[in-house]
This record gives sequence, C-alpha cells and structure tokens, in this order.
Amino acid sequence: MQRIRSDEAKTHVGEHVKLAGWMHNFRDMSKFGFLFLRDGAGILQAVLDKEAELERLRGIQYESVLEVVGTVVAEPRASAGVELHDCQVNVLSPVLEPLPFEINKKEFKPGLDVFLDYAPLGLRSPQKRALFRIQAEIMRGYREYLNGQGFVEIQTPKIVGAATESGANVFKIDYFGRPAYLAQSPQFYKQIMVGVFERVFEIGPVFRAEKHNTARHTNEYVSLDMEMGFIQDHTDVMNVLTGILRHVFDRLNASSAQELELVRAKVPRIGDTIPAIRMPAAQQIILDRFGEDCRGEPDLAPQHEVWLCEYAEKVLGSELLFVTHYPVSKRPFYAMPDDQDPTLTKSFDLLFRGCEITTGGQRIHRYEQLLRNATRWGIHPEDIDGYLQAFKYGMPPHGGFGMGLERLLMQLTGLTNLREATLFPRDLERLAP
Amino acid sequence: MQRIRSDEAKTHVGEHVKLAGWMHNFRDMSKFGFLFLRDGAGILQAVLDKEAELERLRGIQYESVLEVVGTVVAEPRASAGVELHDCQVNVLSPVLEPLPFEINKKEFKPGLDVFLDYAPLGLRSPQKRALFRIQAEIMRGYREYLNGQGFVEIQTPKIVGAATESGANVFKIDYFGRPAYLAQSPQFYKQIMVGVFERVFEIGPVFRAEKHNTARHTNEYVSLDMEMGFIQDHTDVMNVLTGILRHVFDRLNASSAQELELVRAKVPRIGDTIPAIRMPAAQQIILDRFGEDCRGEPDLAPQHEVWLCEYAEKVLGSELLFVTHYPVSKRPFYAMPDDQDPTLTKSFDLLFRGCEITTGGQRIHRYEQLLRNATRWGIHPEDIDGYLQAFKYGMPPHGGFGMGLERLLMQLTGLTNLREATLFPRDLERLAP
Repeated sequence: MQRIRSDEAKTHVGEHVKLAGWMHNFRDMSKFGFLFLRDGAGILQAVLDKEAELERLRGIQYESVLEVVGTVVAEPRASAGVELHDCQVNVLSPVLEPLPFEINKKEFKPGLDVFLDYAPLGLRSPQKRALFRIQAEIMRGYREYLNGQGFVEIQTPKIVGAATESGANVFKIDYFGRPAYLAQSPQFYKQIMVGVFERVFEIGPVFRAEKHNTARHTNEYVSLDMEMGFIQDHTDVMNVLTGILRHVFDRLNASSAQELELVRAKVPRIGDTIPAIRMPAAQQIILDRFGEDCRGEPDLAPQHEVWLCEYAEKVLGSELLFVTHYPVSKRPFYAMPDDQDPTLTKSFDLLFRGCEITTGGQRIHRYEQLLRNATRWGIHPEDIDGYLQAFKYGMPPHGGFGMGLERLLMQLTGLTNLREATLFPRDLERLAP
Repeated sequence: MQRIRSDEAKTHVGEHVKLAGWMHNFRDMSKFGFLFLRDGAGILQAVLDKEAELERLRGIQYESVLEVVGTVVAEPRASAGVELHDCQVNVLSPVLEPLPFEINKKEFKPGLDVFLDYAPLGLRSPQKRALFRIQAEIMRGYREYLNGQGFVEIQTPKIVGAATESGANVFKIDYFGRPAYLAQSPQFYKQIMVGVFERVFEIGPVFRAEKHNTARHTNEYVSLDMEMGFIQDHTDVMNVLTGILRHVFDRLNASSAQELELVRAKVPRIGDTIPAIRMPAAQQIILDRFGEDCRGEPDLAPQHEVWLCEYAEKVLGSELLFVTHYPVSKRPFYAMPDDQDPTLTKSFDLLFRGCEITTGGQRIHRYEQLLRNATRWGIHPEDIDGYLQAFKYGMPPHGGFGMGLERLLMQLTGLTNLREATLFPRDLERLAP
C-alpha cells in the first residue's frame, strides 16, 4: 500500500490508507487510546481500540517511528477534520529512552542551552518546525522577487586568500600549509559580478570571528546579499529592498498563516515606502525624545536602534526604518561619499522592531578613487588586485546590501536571541551539534 | 530620462531613449561608427555619425562604461531587430588600459590560467555569461522541483567541531584557539533534519582538502543536497533525482535556448527512467566490451566511467547511467547494507557523459546498527553524539544524495576542466581572485 501524508488524508475519507510518522503524542485511556502521528506535513489523530495495538505503543517512547494502517473517518472535532479508525500499528524505529523534554506541548520553552544541546530532537516541535519553515519561505520569496527583477544568482567562494575588508574578525584556515581565511561577506565578489551580470544576488554563509557573545551575534550566519549596477544613488537599492520585503511578507501571509500563528508572529505592513531619516536627524530625535545626546557619534548603539524604532512606529506608523548617511569613519573604504557632505556616505541601515537587519549603500565605482581610498584605509592594493581589476576594466555606479537571514527571522517572530533563529548556531562556546 | 535595458528597446521604436552599459565593441569607419553596447540583458548596436561622439570613443578602451541617448529605429539586420540612431554618448567610467585579451570575439578561448587570472574581466564575455546563467537556472530548477515535492530548504553550518566522515581531507580552522573544521558535506545535518521535516534540501559550499590537482576536482564546490524520509530503498531517491534532472533540463530548454546555443551545449533527453546497473554487472560489461578486468575492485576509475557511459549511450540510448550497489568498503559507515548481499550497499552514483556527478543512497536509520557501524569504522561515538541523538530519538528509513553543481554544468556544456565551470575556483595553487 502506498503511504499518504497527513494533509492528504481528508481526500481519502472512507478509504483504507497507510500513514507513517513519529509518535507525537499518545493518550492511553486503557480500553482505547488516541495516537497523534506527526509527519512532514502535519499531525493526524488515530483511534486505537485493539488491545494488541495499544500494548505495542505502551512499551515505547514518544518519537518512535510508526506506520499506521487504518480507515479515514470524517471527524469535525479533530484538527485535521478527519481521523483514522481500525488502526494497525507497525513500529519502524522504536525509541527506548525517555525524551529529555516534552516537544508535544502547546508551550515549548526549554532553556536555550538545554534546547541547543538537544536541537536534533527539539527542532521537531511544531513551534520550531514552523519557525524554520518561515525561514525557508523567506529565502524563497527573496529569490522569487529578485529573479523577477532580472537578478542572476551567484555562488562565490568562502575560502579567500586575503583578509580583506578588515584584518580583524576573520577565521584563519590552514590551506595546504598556506594561510587563508573564511569570507566575512561576498562583498568583493558580488561587486565584481556587477561587471558581468549587472544585477546579482547570493544566499550563503558568512563567517565573523567576533569575540563578543551577545544575543544578536553569532559567528556564522546566512547572508542575503544583492548588488546592482546603473543606480542613481543608494535610494535605488533601498527601493529594491523595500520591494523584496513587501513581496516576502505578502508571501508569508499567503503561504504560512498557520506557521505564523504557531510562533505568534505578526507580519509588518509596508506602505508605499519605508520611512528614511539621515543619521544626524536620527541622533537629534534621540536627544529630543529620549534625552540622550549621541550627536556626532559615528554609529548607533543597540539602545538607539530600539528608540528610533519606537519613534518610527509611534510617529511614522512604520515598524521598519531606514537610517541613511552613516559617517565615512564607520563604513568600509569602498563606500561612496555623499556629494554634499564628504564626511558622510551614501549608505543605509534598515532597522526592524529595534534591531538592525540590513546594511547597504552605494559603492565607489571609479578605479582611481577606489585605489586612493584603499590606500588611505591602510589596505595594500596588491592584496585586493582581483577586486581592483574589475574597476580598472570599467564598473558602473552600483550598490547593494547584505541582510542577515536569522536577524530578519528573529525580529519577525519576536525572538530575543539570534541562536533561537539559527538551526545549529556557532558561537564562542558552541561548535556542535 | 529613465534608462531602459537593451532587451526593452524593441518596444520603443521611434522613441528617444537612454541606455547604459559596457563598450563591448566599436567599429570606427572614420565618418561614422558602430558601437555595440552590452548591458545585463544583451547587446545593442548604436550608429554614431557625429564627429564629437566618435572622438569621445576613440580615446578610451573596450569595457568603458557608457550612457547612450538615441532614437530606436527598426533594423532587421541588427541582431536585436533594432538599433540606435542620432546618438549622444556619455562616458561614466573610462577604461584607459588595453584589455589583456579580447572578450568580444565569437571564439573566446584564452588559456585557462590567463583566464582565471583575469576572471573579473573574462567572465563578462558572452560565452562565460551564458555559462553562469545556465548555472543559475540549474539551481532555480532544482529548488522549484523539490519545493513542489514538499521539500523544505535548510541552511546548515559550515564550521564543524569534529572532522567526522573521514579524518583526512578536511581543512582545519583556528576557532578562538580551539581546532574546528570546514564541513565536507551537510550529510549529518541533512539527516538530522529528516527527523524534523522528513524532506529537506540545501544548496551550499562544501570543502575538500584533497591534495590531487585533477581536471575534475577543486577544493571548494557547490553541492546540491537532498535527503528524504520514509523511503523503501535507494531507488526512491533515484526516482526523485530523475524527476529533478528532467525538470531542470526541461527548464533549460524553455528558458535558456540562447545561452545553450552560445556555449554549444545540448541538453540530454531523459526517458521514463534513467537506466541502472549494479556494480558487479557494470564491471562485467567493462571486461566484455572494453577488455579490462576490474571485477571485484571496490570503485570505478575515471576511465571505467567513460566506458560505461559509452556503453549506456550506444546500447541503452541514454547519456545518463546509474551504477548501484557499491561495496561497503567504499561507502561511509552510515550507508545501508544490501539485504541480499551485506558486502554491498543500497547506494548509487549517477554518471553523465563519462563522469560521476552524484553520489547517494539509503542510510542506516536504526540507532543500534549505526552505533555499531560507527565503532567498527573507528569513529568515536562521542565525536558524533549530536548526529547519533537524532537516531536515538527515532529516525525513519531515509536516503538522499549530493550532486556537484559545477560537475553537472561541466558535463552539460562539454567543458574539460571543472575550473571552467566554477566562478572563482579554489585549488592547490589558486586562492584568488
């Protein structure tokens, strides 16, 4: 008999079918019992009333893998609208040890460290499954939108010969006796590829050897990157990012209502544009409304981001806020200076519910200017000659951004630690599983 | 004036428009000239007949970035069906040095090392662009098919705490003073995730510190991975792989005819199934038809793969061939042994035009059996305790495969070196650009 999945059962009412999955729950009422069978598609309730079948489940633990053959019966009270009767159970993989925590409860909130130690098990809980299904949908929506706008997907190397953007915070590899490094971002490669395809994107891992252990940092994360040519300035990039997020959020509302509900997430609404304020104006708002004077500081502290989002929500009616024109001193050597004020850059961060999720901007495209800036930043041109080559042979005005997938998921679903939005996080302490 | 892209010009006949791109070619006929402007979408021909405009291009090199304003005129002899007249040219980024090679010729075949040294420039040639557009379409088709089959996309860590599958051939990282390693494959993680989603896939980088420098190996490549639960045996995985490839190839024929023509690639036809032969039978064929006795050897040599594909094409009418049931000694500890002959595994390789592109099979899903096998293979269970945890808490019969993106592209387009199918290859000598 061909196995069907739990979401297909409702189209088989009256039929004898086979399902297979995990013993998500089992309520033993002595003369009969309710088995909740979880498979990749969902959870189906099965009614057991034969002593032999009940006995079979009594000897094993939750998460045992089962095959169940039975008859599909309409049952409005069951969450799937149907249940299985006259069941025969076959144990494919028995679990013999009790679980370290219960994953079948409405509230699944083990301590973070316990959860991470048992992630292979804990990720099976409906809440965690919902979370990472949403993550998959974000990636899907991101690609869908950019493909529709003529962007080409690229895959660039993660092992690089020189620690480029900044010497610090890179992981060093032994590459056949030579030093090499893990890429902190696909920045140089995606810019090179603007010369090839004009518009490119990549979803891939990036590696940061940062030693601080905060709730919003890990040492390996997934970056949603894009880069596009022939822009007027950084606002063209912000407009594409706005379009991406609108598409991703629409997609989530359409495809993932159940998952959003399970993790109690509400997707923000994006109007025609996401509001944008310049860095100096943002700092003035912080002073005026929250009483802290950070004017002239080169960057925003986490608390500043929280305040600005509070302001954006209350006053501008938006859960998202662009802050633009970060100072030259806080941006990389390739950031395009502002025409009016050369101490500022044509750059932006996107804040979402109190946390930065994206950094982007226009890049310098003229070879001479880039070379001059690299030297000024203390970078040896021979260390980045492949990158500079693209500019020597003609690059258009261009810009792009990098967006942390886990950060976006964390803010979207109201998590408080980035590790909860990461399948198998890597940090100062954690290299496993 | 809003810029349009070259492929949009034909819908603007009679209009005054702005285009922007690279000076792909320029034929100077003294009183007038033909400029071939290349942008992300294609190449458009512009007729220049004003002395000032001609003079502007005479002073700069190919690949300079230009804006051209002109009137769109129907011209059946031009490849786009239209050309630009009455043009005004504005140089956005001039190129001042002559190029190291010509990228605007019908035949673009620089030596491999020269090409790789100048990849940021050389990748702009129409042939190379076509190649990596095909690569992007392969990824797109792969995801499209698996999403349609209920697979969930995952992103798993590339930094791992233990060198697991085999101690050799892994790159070592300095992880805050501790040793860590680069993942050779997402194998353990995707199996763990079968416990979560039943069906998962991933496209991401894998790292192999192999010291051999062959035309079909690099040290970092992109792996198309999948893993699925509740299978009968490895043939279920082969069937999904067949469906993926059929979909990818159909997609390429529909979306990438121009690109396929440019790189002179012909997409193979896949019938109802891809033929499959068992390893011992394959070795017998090699002896019978090609005179070499490799019976009993645990693996196929590259020449054997060439011969088997020759056989498959001539006798079975297929450019693809599954070889199944590789010996236990040549497969990892988690490979499922065959029921009839426990010296063989329920595994397969997929050969395509003379080269292996995929390795897959059914995995062991019972905890006790896996633990026993790991120990027998000399693996310390405590080194893989996260992996084993998934099995302790119930895993279904499952299997999957890993397919090299660059290998598939290489065989599809008839390239002879994997480096030509890789954007920025990494090998024993090459870490840049």
